[in-house]
Order: sequence, then C-alpha cells, then structure tokens
Amino acid sequence: MVVVMAPDATDEDIARVVEKVEGVGGEAFVSKGVVRTIIGLVGDIDSFHHLNLRSMSGVADVHRISDPYKLVSRQHHPERSTVWVGGVPFGPETFTFVAGPCAVESPAQTLEAAEMAKAAGATLLRGGAFKPRTSPYAFQGLGVRGLEILSSVREATGLPIVTEITDARDVKVVVEHADMLQVGTRNMANFGLLQAVGEAGKPVLLKRGMNSTIEEWLMAAEYIAQRGNLDVVLCERGIRTFEPATRNTLDISAVPVVQATSHLPVIVDPSHAAGRKDLVVPLSRAAIAVGADGVIVDVHPDPESALCDGPQALLGNDLRLLAQAVRQLPPAVGRVDAGTRVRTPV
Amino acid sequence: MVVVMAPDATDEDIARVVEKVEGVGGEAFVSKGVVRTIIGLVGDIDSFHHLNLRSMSGVADVHRISDPYKLVSRQHHPERSTVWVGGVPFGPETFTFVAGPCAVESPAQTLEAAEMAKAAGATLLRGGAFKPRTSPYAFQGLGVRGLEILSSVREATGLPIVTEITDARDVKVVVEHADMLQVGTRNMANFGLLQAVGEAGKPVLLKRGMNSTIEEWLMAAEYIAQRGNLDVVLCERGIRTFEPATRNTLDISAVPVVQATSHLPVIVDPSHAAGRKDLVVPLSRAAIAVGADGVIVDVHPDPESALCDGPQALLGNDLRLLAQAVRQLPPAVGRVDAGTRVRTPV
Amino acid sequence: MVVVMAPDATDEDIARVVEKVEGVGGEAFVSKGVVRTIIGLVGDIDSFHHLNLRSMSGVADVHRISDPYKLVSRQHHPERSTVWVGGVPFGPETFTFVAGPCAVESPAQTLEAAEMAKAAGATLLRGGAFKPRTSPYAFQGLGVRGLEILSSVREATGLPIVTEITDARDVKVVVEHADMLQVGTRNMANFGLLQAVGEAGKPVLLKRGMNSTIEEWLMAAEYIAQRGNLDVVLCERGIRTFEPATRNTLDISAVPVVQATSHLPVIVDPSHAAGRKDLVVPLSRAAIAVGADGVIVDVHPDPESALCDGPQALLGNDLRLLAQAVRQLPPAVGRVDAGTRVRTPV
Amino acid sequence: MVVVMAPDATDEDIARVVEKVEGVGGEAFVSKGVVRTIIGLVGDIDSFHHLNLRSMSGVADVHRISDPYKLVSRQHHPERSTVWVGGVPFGPETFTFVAGPCAVESPAQTLEAAEMAKAAGATLLRGGAFKPRTSPYAFQGLGVRGLEILSSVREATGLPIVTEITDARDVKVVVEHADMLQVGTRNMANFGLLQAVGEAGKPVLLKRGMNSTIEEWLMAAEYIAQRGNLDVVLCERGIRTFEPATRNTLDISAVPVVQATSHLPVIVDPSHAAGRKDLVVPLSRAAIAVGADGVIVDVHPDPESALCDGPQALLGNDLRLLAQAVRQLPPAVGRVDAGTRVRTPV
Repeated sequence: MVVVMAPDATDEDIARVVEKVEGVGGEAFVSKGVVRTIIGLVGDIDSFHHLNLRSMSGVADVHRISDPYKLVSRQHHPERSTVWVGGVPFGPETFTFVAGPCAVESPAQTLEAAEMAKAAGATLLRGGAFKPRTSPYAFQGLGVRGLEILSSVREATGLPIVTEITDARDVKVVVEHADMLQVGTRNMANFGLLQAVGEAGKPVLLKRGMNSTIEEWLMAAEYIAQRGNLDVVLCERGIRTFEPATRNTLDISAVPVVQATSHLPVIVDPSHAAGRKDLVVPLSRAAIAVGADGVIVDVHPDPESALCDGPQALLGNDLRLLAQAVRQLPPAVGRVDAGTRVRTPV
Repeated sequence: MVVVMAPDATDEDIARVVEKVEGVGGEAFVSKGVVRTIIGLVGDIDSFHHLNLRSMSGVADVHRISDPYKLVSRQHHPERSTVWVGGVPFGPETFTFVAGPCAVESPAQTLEAAEMAKAAGATLLRGGAFKPRTSPYAFQGLGVRGLEILSSVREATGLPIVTEITDARDVKVVVEHADMLQVGTRNMANFGLLQAVGEAGKPVLLKRGMNSTIEEWLMAAEYIAQRGNLDVVLCERGIRTFEPATRNTLDISAVPVVQATSHLPVIVDPSHAAGRKDLVVPLSRAAIAVGADGVIVDVHPDPESALCDGPQALLGNDLRLLAQAVRQLPPAVGRVDAGTRVRTPV
Repeated sequence: MVVVMAPDATDEDIARVVEKVEGVGGEAFVSKGVVRTIIGLVGDIDSFHHLNLRSMSGVADVHRISDPYKLVSRQHHPERSTVWVGGVPFGPETFTFVAGPCAVESPAQTLEAAEMAKAAGATLLRGGAFKPRTSPYAFQGLGVRGLEILSSVREATGLPIVTEITDARDVKVVVEHADMLQVGTRNMANFGLLQAVGEAGKPVLLKRGMNSTIEEWLMAAEYIAQRGNLDVVLCERGIRTFEPATRNTLDISAVPVVQATSHLPVIVDPSHAAGRKDLVVPLSRAAIAVGADGVIVDVHPDPESALCDGPQALLGNDLRLLAQAVRQLPPAVGRVDAGTRVRTPV
Repeated sequence: MVVVMAPDATDEDIARVVEKVEGVGGEAFVSKGVVRTIIGLVGDIDSFHHLNLRSMSGVADVHRISDPYKLVSRQHHPERSTVWVGGVPFGPETFTFVAGPCAVESPAQTLEAAEMAKAAGATLLRGGAFKPRTSPYAFQGLGVRGLEILSSVREATGLPIVTEITDARDVKVVVEHADMLQVGTRNMANFGLLQAVGEAGKPVLLKRGMNSTIEEWLMAAEYIAQRGNLDVVLCERGIRTFEPATRNTLDISAVPVVQATSHLPVIVDPSHAAGRKDLVVPLSRAAIAVGADGVIVDVHPDPESALCDGPQALLGNDLRLLAQAVRQLPPAVGRVDAGTRVRTPV
C-alpha cells in the first residue's frame, strides 16, 4: 500500500500516518519529494484497511498495490485449476463446449435442444429454469418444473446440467437437480447468493457482471471460495459500453488477464455478449484462439418460437460451423476437446 | 413497435410478419421504401413481445417505441406523486434532506451522527445495518443489532429511519425496525428482492444500478409497483464511466429525465457518486437546482474511524455549508424544506 | 512516482531500477514488503519518464503521483484565473452567459439569434462558421462567409464572438473575426490545432473531449498554455456513457474537480450534453449551483428550420426561464452576473 | 426513417409532418396506435435530414433506419474489397501482418525493428514519425527526418511503409515517403484531415476512435471515400470502457460487425488496445480466428530504451510465438498469409 500525502501536508500529518501504521504492527517507509511525500506500507494489508488512512489529515490518496483476492489468486496457487462437473473437466488442457436453450420451455423443446447440443459436440447442457428478466411482464422461467425437465433430459442424453440460480432461497431445490450452479451477470454482486452457493457443495459458473471490473469479478469468486467452495468456473459475457452494434461488448482480453492472475478456469459466452446469432461463430473462434477454457452458447430447435433470447440462438448451418470450430481450432492452440477427457463421476 | 426488414427481405417474409401480428389481434402498416420496408405495429404491445419477431426470416431489427413500464409511468398518471415516510414527504413541492452514517457501528456513533444530521436540517436518518461489500474480508455491518440501534436512535431523535436490505430473507426483520427500505445499487436488478420489498408494506428507496440505464431503473421500480407498492422513491447515485476522478459519474440529467417520464419522486446521493467529501456540497447544490426532490448524504462524527466510506462523510464546516444550501436554495427553485411539511404519521 | 515490483522480482531487478533512477539524478526509496517491493522516486519527474521503467525486468507497474500538467495547475498558481474576452470576464466571482445559434446560417438568422441571446442576458455570442459534422453529407457551415456575418452581428449588437476552429490552416482568418477561438470536443486531442491556437494570441474556449478524462483535458489545455497562451476557458459538454436518454452524460462533477486542480475558468454546455431542449434549463440551473463560471447554450429564432442541432435550441418560454435563472441563482452561490463587470476592451 | 409522435401530438401535428415530407418528394405512411402514432418515411433520406423533423411540434423522436454511409457500405458493393499497399494485399482471402516500432527513433533502431518484423513474417513496416502525445512534454517524433529514415529502411528491407499523419499540412511530405497513410485514433473525427488524406492518392489505414461507435468510424471512412479514395483499411484498436486492466478494451466483435456492413478490409491492433506485451500474442490469435484481415503490432529491438510505448513492444520469445500464430492459424479459418500473394507494385 502506498499513501500519497497532499502537497500541503505537514510533518505532523506524516508522523501521524506513520504512527497509525506502526500501531497495527506495520512498517512505513517515507519518501519525501520536492512537491509531495509518499509513504510505502509494509505488513498485513488487512489491518491497514481498517485504519481509514484516506480520511486522515494531509492524506491525498491511498493506492492499493497487492491484489485484494487471495484464495482465487495464482500468487499462492500458481498452477491453473481444473474444475470437474459431472465428470467433465474445465481446465488448462481442455476446451469445454457447453450448449443448450436460454430457457427451459417444455420437455420436448429441451430434449431437442439437448440433442442438437450433443450432436454438435457439447459435453454439458445449459438451460434456465429461473430467468431474471428486466421486465416483470416477461417470461420468468418454469421454476421447479423446469429443473425437473432438465433432470429428465440429463437422464436421456447423459449431459450434466448447468442452470442459473437467482435467489438464495432456491439453493436447496436447485442443488437437487443441477450439476453446476450458474450465478448470472445481474447477481454477480449479490453477496448473499454468492455465500449461499459457496456453501452448496456444487461447482459454480460465475458470470461476470456486465458492469464489473475483472478485479470485482475475482472478488465475487473470492466470496464463494471463502465459504469453502473452490470449484468456480468464471464466464466472460460482455460488458456495457457505448457501442450499440452489439448488446454488450465481449471483453476478449479478460480471458488472458484472468488467467494471468487467477488459477480458476475461464470460459466465454458469445451469445449473450453479442445478442446476435451471426456473431456467435466468429466470437467462439476468437474465444478458442485467445485461450479460453470453454464456451457456452444458446441453441434452440425453433428460435422463432423461443420464449427468451431467440435472436441469439444457433441452429442449422451456424451450429455446424461452430461444431467444426470446436473440433478443429483447440488443437491449434494446444488443447484437446474436453469430451475426450470425460471421466465417470464418482 | 416498428419492424425493420432487411434489404433482401422477400414479399413473403413481409407477409409472414403481417400475418403473425394480425394473428394476435394487432394491425400492421407496411411502408415500402426503395431499399427497405418498415412495418409499424399497432395494438397490444405485450402480445407482440411473445411473437419473437426479431428471429423471423427477413427481419433486420425491431424498435420498441412506447415505454416498457406502466405503473410508474406518467402516461396514465400525469401528476407527480408524493411518498410519505414516517410523516415526511418526498414530492414535487418539497426538498427532503436525508443524512446519517454509511454504516451503523455503535449506539454512540449512530446517535451522534443522527444528532449532527438533525442539527443540519435532516428530516430522515440513513444508516446501514446490512452492508454489501465488494470484499468478503470487509466489515459487513452489525445486522439485526444494527437495526435495534437504529430503532433506539429514532426514539431518541424522532427521525424516521431508512436502511438497506440486501437479502429477501431479511425482509421480515428489517420491516420491524425501518420506516423505509433501501434497495442498493448492486441489488437494483435482484428481482427476487424487488418483489419481496414490493410486498413488504413499507416505502422503498430504490437506488439506480451503477450500470443501469434510466429505463432499466424504472423497470426495477415497476417490479416493486407490480407487487402492489407504489411508494417508491428513486435515488440517482452515479453511473460507471471511464472517468477516474470520481468514484462514479453523477448523472445529474437523470433527475429531469426521470421526472419527465415517471411520477415517482427522485433524489440524489452525492456522497456515493463522488466518493470524495469535497464534492458533496457542490453536488448537493446542483441536485437542488436541477429540481431533485431531495438528497441523501453520509455524515459521521469521526470519519477517520469510520468502518465504511469514511472519505466521503461530511462533518464540521462542510456540513454547515450543506445545511445552509438546503435552507437557501430550494426556495430559489420553487420548493420548501420538507421539514416544514412533516405530518404526524398515522 | 512509485515503481511496483512484481512478486518474483529479484534483488538485481530492484538494484537496476535504483541505479537507473540515480543515473538521472533522482532518489529511490525502497520499501520491501512480504510479497512485493515498492520503490518511491523523488526528483525531476520528466527525467523519469524517459527511463521507460515499466519495460524493465521485474517491474510490474509504475504509478504517477503528481499531476502531469504544470502551467494550468493550481499547484504553483493557487489563485483561480480570470480570462477576459472582449471585455467580458470568465472567472471565480462572476457568472458568464454565452448564447447563440449552433451554426451561422444567414445574416438575418444570426442577428435575430444574437438579439434573443442579448435580451436574455447573454454577454457573448456563440455561432459556428466551420462545423465538424459526423456525416460528409451534412451542412458543414458557411466558412469565411459565416465569420463575416458574425463580425457584422458583433457590430450591430456589441456582443463579442466565440466561434469554433477546426483546422490549423484556418487560424489566420478566424483570428481576424473572432474574439475567442473554440476548440470543439472532436478536436480536443488534435495537438497541431492546440498548438496553433496557443500561438494565435486570442482567448480559447476548450471543450472537453466526449471521451476524455479530466486529466487529458487539462493536458490539452497545457498544450495551449505551453505555446504561451494562458487565456483558456474550459467547457464541460458531456461524456460518452452507456445511457441513451441523453446524447451525452453531463459530468457535472467535473466542474468542482477542475476547480480543485486547475486555476483556469470552467463553464458548462448543457445544450450539447443533453441534446434535448427540455433539459437545458434544469441543467443550466445545476451548472450555476455547482459553481460553474458560466454556461453556453444554443438559441435559434426558428429551431424547426435550423441547419444544425435544432432539437436542442431554446426559444420562447424556455429562454425566459433560463434568463431568470441566470439573474437569480448566481447570487445564491456568491457570484455576480458577468454582464455587470464588463469593461471596455483595450 | 421513422417519426415517432408524442402521445399528446395532435392531428394537425401529424398532418404538418406528412406535408413537410411530401414537400420534398417523399412518402409518409401513418400508423395510428392506441397511445402513439408513428410515421414511416420513404424516399431520399438526405432530403429528410434537412427537414429537422425532430424539432417539429408533436414529434417525440426520429429513428434512422438505413445506414448513413453509402460508398463504404456493402449495400451497393456486396463483394468485400481488397486494398493493395506497395504490392501487399489487405482483403478477404489473406491475412496481412504489419509490424514495426511505435516511433522511429534512429536509423539503427528502425532498421533493426524492421528486420525483426520481416523475420517474423511481416510484409509491411509500421513506424511513427509524427507522434500525437497526450503530454506536450513527451517525445513528439522525429518528423520529416523520421520519414527519411523510413524510406531508407524500406529500400534496405523491401517492406512498404505505413506511417501516421496528424496534420493536414503534412500530407505533401508524408505522401512523398509513405506507402500508406495512417489516421490515428485521436484524429478519426478530424474531418479536415480525413478530407486531405482522401485527396492524397495513397491508401489509408483508418484507426477507430477510442470513443467512437462503429457507425461513426464508417462515417469517417465515408469522408475519405467521398474525396475519391476507396483504398481504406479499417483498424480496430480498442475502445474506452470502465475496465482498468487493459489500456483500452479490444472490441473484437467489431471485426465481424464491420465485415457485415462494409466492404472495406479491417485489421486489429492488439498492442495499443491492451498496452501490455503479455496480451499481444493471445489477442493476435483471437484476431486471426475472428476473421480479421490482418494485425498490426509494435516490435522494438530494445523496449527498455523505447521513446514511446515500450511496455507493449514485442521481442524475443513473444515475437516467435506471434510469428508462429501468423503462420499456423490463418489456414484454420480459410485464409493465406498475405506474404504469399505479394505482387510487384506498378
């Protein structure tokens, strides 16, 4: 931590900062410049946070230097992790393809979408039973009935299930049916929910808040990890910018940035980032090439009749192109299809 | 609603759109241009949403024309509303000053802050018992003990209480102690929480998501209203932009924009927007002048020892300047201090 | 300046940084932490920049601590400046009202707009002869003919003229006609143009780039100042964000932020920020209350026939409300109308 | 174009709009809804722009439907274009690798960088002689001397030259030395410069403004095209967002979005987008996979001593990885290295 003093800070101001830092067992190194003095703090950073240095007389600014997350950081865990979901790996050597309908609408639609996904090479099925929607008048998902449909489709296809959880009160019922709990972009900073999934004993897919910095996203993962659950897969899904051509702006750089600082796997959701079907295949290719550990895409047997996000669901030729990319591109960046590494879940 | 056809759309594509719209009882007006055809839809907009027109063959884009919110819109409720909280009005004729500590830390600190707030002219006390924090290692609030402190401080000072609720599971206990429930910026799109406070029978202070458009914010209010609660006060608290000089960018224009489209009161939180004490007074003046229905600011008897957001808490001279602004400026824009209109709560 | 070393930096890496800094006459204070080492640099910051420390082995990051601007900073010039334009002051004690048409279209339209502006209390006339337009097919301004019209309208009304310059090649002709040269938002980082107006011997109105941080904006002012011209008035005109309700988001906080770090006057352009006529009056009130040194607004005798930005031009009742605000509000924040302090230009 | 009337618009308001549109030879189709009326306009869109419909009584909003650009649009030019620069193609079948130092510093440094670039497979040399810098105190480039160095390095290596032009007054001298003129991100909306390069008779590399929408970027290309120059290559180089981990956020989706609407080639600059050397290789891979027509990257023989942007310059192992990616990945997405298609310039 570095404390920057204001140009008009007095020697007494500086002394008070040093004293406060030493009072909690830290060391303070003072560098007096012509215009300003800066004070480097060494010691237990958590104890410094409580000092409220920024509010002290003569203090202009306080810069944090270390990363604020610990359990999810590569600092003490340099090897990148592999997270297993129903026998399917997410990790540094594989590329994992997750697909399915945005929302579970009926047993037939879900089964058909799952079979499309499987035929295209997907090894996990996504599908929403609880849908967070901007409008209270929009389709909100089938709820528990949707979970039951997902369970039966898993039985029929063998694909493990990832589904969104939007409310801490639903953890118990979702855990009964799902192999992986998804925390959506709107709930990334719903700390009660993060703690609840941290205690649920299932792997978590944590989408990035569309307004969140990478650091805040990793802090959200830290909330889950802190409750004892390190089986977290991160998912970049676009951030909010001024560009209107896409629903959000896919921050493709986030993949290598995350991989440089955290050991957790990170995948990409091109469907929700773009909100446009025609961009899903090129963006999936980009995700593979940039080194993502997987992609998650929307497919629907009949997008025109979809109750949610039809315009971004793949089918037909696009899905074939995507299947081809998932087969051909990962080897070009040193990875194998996760489908070849599936192991029987314990 | 306007459907824009792609340049290469066929007559059949156009006919299918018209047919689909008429199939749900709507009317479709076709305008054929040299390059493109556009189709204007007239009828019940909700029925059109389910048609998934954007996924149809030949459709390039669909523009919504009407506002998606209803209960909170001025369209059918042109008069701006007044919301009463413990006898204090938020509305078009008054200016309401809310102040208090960011977090409740102890009975003494809360009482002292409340007395500062009251002396400066505040008519409501803010204070957080449940604190949503970016880091799981930061102070998370006193919880129920904090609510009890707030209750006792209300008894001592007569100031009604507004406090944040972060989890639908806490509604029952918060309602027992608070006069107004605050939904914070990180929970604006936590739809389960919005529905829970919509059913709680207390006025709600709904902060704008730091990443949310004004339309999304009004849709969040619609979620609350739809559960039967129209006592919603909106609070602009800054949005996330590229500018690093302030924690967030206060979107002062949001105040007149909201007032033009919604009948709900709207206030401003300059403390959390700026994150800097020295900007709170000028931004509060701007909020009054732009026509806000109130402000909510952080005060703390000893910012240096604050457990949360000390750098933005007012005291001493700044608080005196703010008190002066709240007395002098509202009349210059045709408003009276809400303190002069307090009525005994029923 | 603070150099943050990577966790795996070696003692040799640290020694090389220290050596490099001392090699240009600086001092380096090393603070060794448990995880990282930070090095505080003291001395001539410009000499450090050329060291390219960020590229050195073992260096994770370099934080600049001091402001990068000098001539426009309050550090060595604590008093806020007054800039005089044709006898009209922009400064800390006054409030200056600038108005006029977005574009000069004809002698009659310009004269009529100028008379409206003057009647409403404006003391300077704005009007564009060279218009930077997003589309090459849009009206690009009357050019030199427009400047001549402005000159004749100044003669008729006595109002000094501020007009935009978009190309360094036009400096000579614009200087002949204008009292103040405006650098527009799209040219804020056109460094050749900044240097040209810096040498032109006329006051400059420097609009903030819609994408620029406050620091970059002050650096643009530094470019002008460095060429010997300190008569620069800054103009906040909105920044680009995700919010679509307004054309740009007026960053009202920028006014007190600038005033805290620079001695230059700063005014607000609510017309271009909002792009909506109905927001101009409330935003002007906010600008006055926040402490801006002036406002600049679009007026047009017949907005429907305006060749540029008609939707944001004021007339009739709105202009009366604005005139009223400019008369009544500045005294409430300790300022006088600049019109009362006009002095005969030398 | 679609005109949306306000809910309280009168029949007379509607009639006036229709009349105005018909007055310039257009057709107006009126769709009366329960709440609002919308009017679809058919005819010559440019004539509608001058009507200023948005300022008319009763008009709430005007939506443009067609793209505002013409010459650069695929609408009338469906085939994607190939632009030739000194015999090197940029187009839909090839992948073009451009590399070189951010700034020309000396003959030796430039030659060495050019040889590195060539050895890694680059077919064009980039290098800046005129550098737009945020600070007037930073290195501004060698100017004409830099151009001469570039010329001599071209002779030595055979690599055609792309270099930035920042001022319309420099067109003549730059054209003498360069094979391609670069318009940088800060000058994308410098319309005088765009027109000057449009008349210069050389291919142009047009970087996206870091704050510009894709539509505005294509309008900037339209400015160049309108002056008779259709040899424009677009370059995505990151946009400004709230994410601080990278200097800008590379908008990788912009590549397929541009390719869907414009026939011009589009390449990616991962060095300036990220501002971090460690991201250049993964982002280049992503650019190839997403379908970009090329990349442009910074290389420097000695980044530590670079006068500009050293932290992002590649050398050694990273450059080898990039060279490998440029060889191996394009065939996986159906492209060949542009180096295999070079033809002798006329």
